[in-house]
Amino acid sequence: MTRYFEDLEPGDVFETSGYTVKKNEIIEFAEQFDPQPFHVDEAAAEDSIFGGLIASGIHTMALASKLTVEETFDMIANLGGRGMDDLQFHQPVRPGDTLHVELEVLETTPSERHSERGYVTYEQRVLDDSDAVVLSLRMETIVRRRPEGQTE
Amino acid sequence: MTRYFEDLEPGDVFETSGYTVKKNEIIEFAEQFDPQPFHVDEAAAEDSIFGGLIASGIHTMALASKLTVEETFDMIANLGGRGMDDLQFHQPVRPGDTLHVELEVLETTPSERHSERGYVTYEQRVLDDSDAVVLSLRMETIVRRRPEGQTE
Repeated sequence: MTRYFEDLEPGDVFETSGYTVKKNEIIEFAEQFDPQPFHVDEAAAEDSIFGGLIASGIHTMALASKLTVEETFDMIANLGGRGMDDLQFHQPVRPGDTLHVELEVLETTPSERHSERGYVTYEQRVLDDSDAVVLSLRMETIVRRRPEGQTE
Repeated sequence: MTRYFEDLEPGDVFETSGYTVKKNEIIEFAEQFDPQPFHVDEAAAEDSIFGGLIASGIHTMALASKLTVEETFDMIANLGGRGMDDLQFHQPVRPGDTLHVELEVLETTPSERHSERGYVTYEQRVLDDSDAVVLSLRMETIVRRRPEGQTE
C-alpha cells in the first residue's frame, strides 16, 4: 500500500533494519568523496582528534538515505527532496558499527501552488547498536497527494 | 602553506575547479544510496516532476565535498566536521552539468574548552556551468589553531 500525503501524520515513526559499516567501505567512500586523513588513513586517524578511523559524515548520510529509501520511501509516494536543516554529527561512526534509522514525521503542509503535492518535514535519526544517536537532521520532502477518486 | 584557524577570516572565499557529472555515475551512486526512480531509471525520471534523470542530493553533496577537500581543505588545518544547516537544493543536477564550489568563511570562534582548536562556519555553494547555485549549505568545522612559536 502506497502512503500518500494524507496518510502521514506528525508523530508517525518509521524504523529501518540495521546496516553494519565495514572498514573498506569507509575508506573507499572517503577516497572518492572526502579524502581527509581521519577517513582514509588508519595510522593518521590514530593521531587525529577521533583516535581512529571514522566514516565521512556524508557517507553516514548516504547510508541513512539507503536504509530510508529502501525500507520507507518504497511505501511513501515521495516526489523529491527540498532541503535539510539542523544536521548534527553527534558521535563518530567507526568500522563495525551497525546503524539503523528512525524517520519521524514532524509536519505536513499542503502545497498552495500544486494541488497534487504536499510538503512533509521529517526528523531523520541515525542510531548505533546501543541506540545512541550518531547523526540527526531535518529533511523537507515533496509527497504526492492521494489521487482524486482513490480511497484508502 | 597550511592555513590555521588564525589565518581564516569572514569573507574569505575559496573556489574550486569544475567537475562534470556523468550519467552512469548518477545512476551508480543512487543505486547504492538513493534508489528512487528519478535517480536510477531514465524512463521513470521522464515522468517525474523533474522531467528527466537527476543526481541524488547526497551525490551532489558528496561531489561538493570531493572538490572542497581536494582543493581547499588540503591547505586548511581541518580537524573534522560538527554539522550542517540550511541545506537547500535550489536546482536539480543533471547528467553533463559541470559543478564547482565556492567556500566562504562566515564566522570564526575560538574553542573555550580546547585551546588548540577553533570553530569555523562556512557557506558552501555549488554552482553549475552558468554560475547558478544548485545547492547551498552552512557547515561548521573544527580547525587547528597555529601551534605556539610557529609564525606565518
